[in-house]
Amino acid sequence: MAHPVSPLAPKTHPELPVVPGVRFATAEAGIKYKNRTDVLLVAFDPGTTVAGVLTRSKCASAAVDWCREQLVGGMARGLVVNSGNANAFTGQKGRDSVRRTAEMAAEALACEPHEIFLASTGVIGEPLDPGKFEGVLSAMAGRLADGPWMEPAKAIMTTDTFPKVATAEVEIDGRTVVISGIAKGSGMIAPDMATMLSFVFTDMPIAGSILQTQLVKQVRRSFNAITVDSDTSTSDTLLVFSTGKALERGIDPILTEDDPRNAVFGEALGDVLFDLAMQVVRDGEGATKFVAVHVDGATSDESAFRIAKSIADSPLVKTAIAGGDANWGRVVMAVGKAGEPADRDKLSIRFGDLLVAEAGERSPAYDEAATSAYMRNEELEISVGLGLGEGQATVYTCDLTHGYIAINGDYRS
Amino acid sequence: MAHPVSPLAPKTHPELPVVPGVRFATAEAGIKYKNRTDVLLVAFDPGTTVAGVLTRSKCASAAVDWCREQLVGGMARGLVVNSGNANAFTGQKGRDSVRRTAEMAAEALACEPHEIFLASTGVIGEPLDPGKFEGVLSAMAGRLADGPWMEPAKAIMTTDTFPKVATAEVEIDGRTVVISGIAKGSGMIAPDMATMLSFVFTDMPIAGSILQTQLVKQVRRSFNAITVDSDTSTSDTLLVFSTGKALERGIDPILTEDDPRNAVFGEALGDVLFDLAMQVVRDGEGATKFVAVHVDGATSDESAFRIAKSIADSPLVKTAIAGGDANWGRVVMAVGKAGEPADRDKLSIRFGDLLVAEAGERSPAYDEAATSAYMRNEELEISVGLGLGEGQATVYTCDLTHGYIAINGDYRS
Repeated sequence: MAHPVSPLAPKTHPELPVVPGVRFATAEAGIKYKNRTDVLLVAFDPGTTVAGVLTRSKCASAAVDWCREQLVGGMARGLVVNSGNANAFTGQKGRDSVRRTAEMAAEALACEPHEIFLASTGVIGEPLDPGKFEGVLSAMAGRLADGPWMEPAKAIMTTDTFPKVATAEVEIDGRTVVISGIAKGSGMIAPDMATMLSFVFTDMPIAGSILQTQLVKQVRRSFNAITVDSDTSTSDTLLVFSTGKALERGIDPILTEDDPRNAVFGEALGDVLFDLAMQVVRDGEGATKFVAVHVDGATSDESAFRIAKSIADSPLVKTAIAGGDANWGRVVMAVGKAGEPADRDKLSIRFGDLLVAEAGERSPAYDEAATSAYMRNEELEISVGLGLGEGQATVYTCDLTHGYIAINGDYRS
Repeated sequence: MAHPVSPLAPKTHPELPVVPGVRFATAEAGIKYKNRTDVLLVAFDPGTTVAGVLTRSKCASAAVDWCREQLVGGMARGLVVNSGNANAFTGQKGRDSVRRTAEMAAEALACEPHEIFLASTGVIGEPLDPGKFEGVLSAMAGRLADGPWMEPAKAIMTTDTFPKVATAEVEIDGRTVVISGIAKGSGMIAPDMATMLSFVFTDMPIAGSILQTQLVKQVRRSFNAITVDSDTSTSDTLLVFSTGKALERGIDPILTEDDPRNAVFGEALGDVLFDLAMQVVRDGEGATKFVAVHVDGATSDESAFRIAKSIADSPLVKTAIAGGDANWGRVVMAVGKAGEPADRDKLSIRFGDLLVAEAGERSPAYDEAATSAYMRNEELEISVGLGLGEGQATVYTCDLTHGYIAINGDYRS
């Protein structure tokens, strides 16, 4: 299952600073992989709040069900993530496994099971034996450290071809607050061997309910604006942990939505989420091109989003991009099938800055040679103007290649 | 663009009988292809009624717009179909081209333009020069014949790898009525070079409004129950023409919905549509396997349909099938993402007769070797039981292979 590193991978990774109040360790629990880490334990200082966004799948994993329940409390002391097994569609065995793992982690970190958050990624339908964590979690608790951050990012990889990290430092009250995150995912979802998980850590003191509202807002332009293959995971999990440790450096907590610092912090949080989300697209299974699909002039932002998603999800658009084909007819098709208000005779389409279609037909300015040359770029922009209103949205995706078929068409091994 | 004949193609084609009141001719208009027919003219005797189902795309082709308008009248004297150019997204030029073509056909057949139905399939966004039909249509009108039916089926092909015909003879009032049809399509849609068109001809005397209701009903279990790649065409057109010529053989017209002969005729019409629809799936771009996805136990038939479609559209399910992988975890994922009522702990999944999952986890009866052996078949059935209600549906699809990428990832040439 070893695949070459995506050609779209970032050339360098940032150095992630210490996040006060966050320590972690990784280990080899031998869940499925050999000779690599496959379990991550993160410990949070008391007082850490947590916010989360979880998959909307009706067949969510046992760990997702667990997180949904514990998020109500809004406080966290620990996080356990394993790769190699998604613990999804595992019935009562899955629920028992989740509870037992939380109990072991709580014992190792001297807290309550309901303060432990869990995420699993890997094959669906295989029972996850909690015995794999026996002794492992307590040993990890004995060697917690505040770096280096590349280790957690590596431990949670499945079909990912590179580890994903992002960080931001934001000035609040004249002092610096840290927001750092890790993610894994190599497909919006590929439930056999890869699902989207992301964990973000900050020392900003912020009330749990406000953090949750910020997260939901910021996720719209980041993780909810990407698609690799239109398949939604049983396990998608995004959690943000705030230790509040910056309080000790004299930063007052954000306790109200309209605190002007909430917007500043939210913007920085959104930037980290966006960075991680783009890395997931860049590691899309078989991807050779990164594509931003912009839609404007829609009757609403939601309508623009659905049209952008229809284009970004279309296998015909994505195979054309893989072939370097400036096939704007397929973009027209994808606009048409979205079921949203659109007027063929007002539609305009651009590849990069090149106008290819306008007013219901091919643009007189259309230049096949220039357009074909543009399509050979590794990063592409498709812009659709609907000419109906003010609604706009951008969705990010990758191309659909032989690599995707090869990765997903193999026997499970 | 010549692709080898689909391995799923029918081994033989039926001989299609004469449909009284229907004559046709094909010709080489040189629209795009060389050395093959690319235009079909069908002439109907006076009194022919027509019913139709057209694409729901918001960017429908000029010919689709034309048909939608003329269907209101419900009477037809002619049909012109061309391959090689879809006349879609061609603005005012497209509308002018359609009108001019209808005028030329009406002149050739001595009828009114509004009695002419039109369909075009091929590349999107290229203006279709009506001059291509100049002289061609009148020459065709001079050599109309009532057979052989394979010729029209061939003239309308694009990326199709085999011509698609189907026929039924149904006994009404002790006499035989003919229903024959042709179709093209090699993807639910592949708008660059292939869209779904189907035309069905019968001599059954039946009121236009009743024929329309029957068509909408019968299309549900046939053309609306197939998917190749989830992309919806700008040009999908299904028209049924009824010459009523069986009246001359003493068959009274169907004038009311509850005429018991309406159900008999509808059933036979549905069988022809189903036969043609299955041939479209069997010619799905790059297809190597034919898959029926059955869902039962849903809260309603509509809910069952949406879940079956979610499974049949999932690129991860389809690549797994291509690889012969009994990856039921991906079926769980696709059930979960459909957004319809589903209870993980009541879900059961079968490949063929083999139970692979039940009650929220892998079945104790699961046999990896037997399941893998089953997956090597060319025709597969995936059955999902939701255990919630009485709703059921079946959707037909094919696998997603390197062939699909190769066919659609090439440059337009």
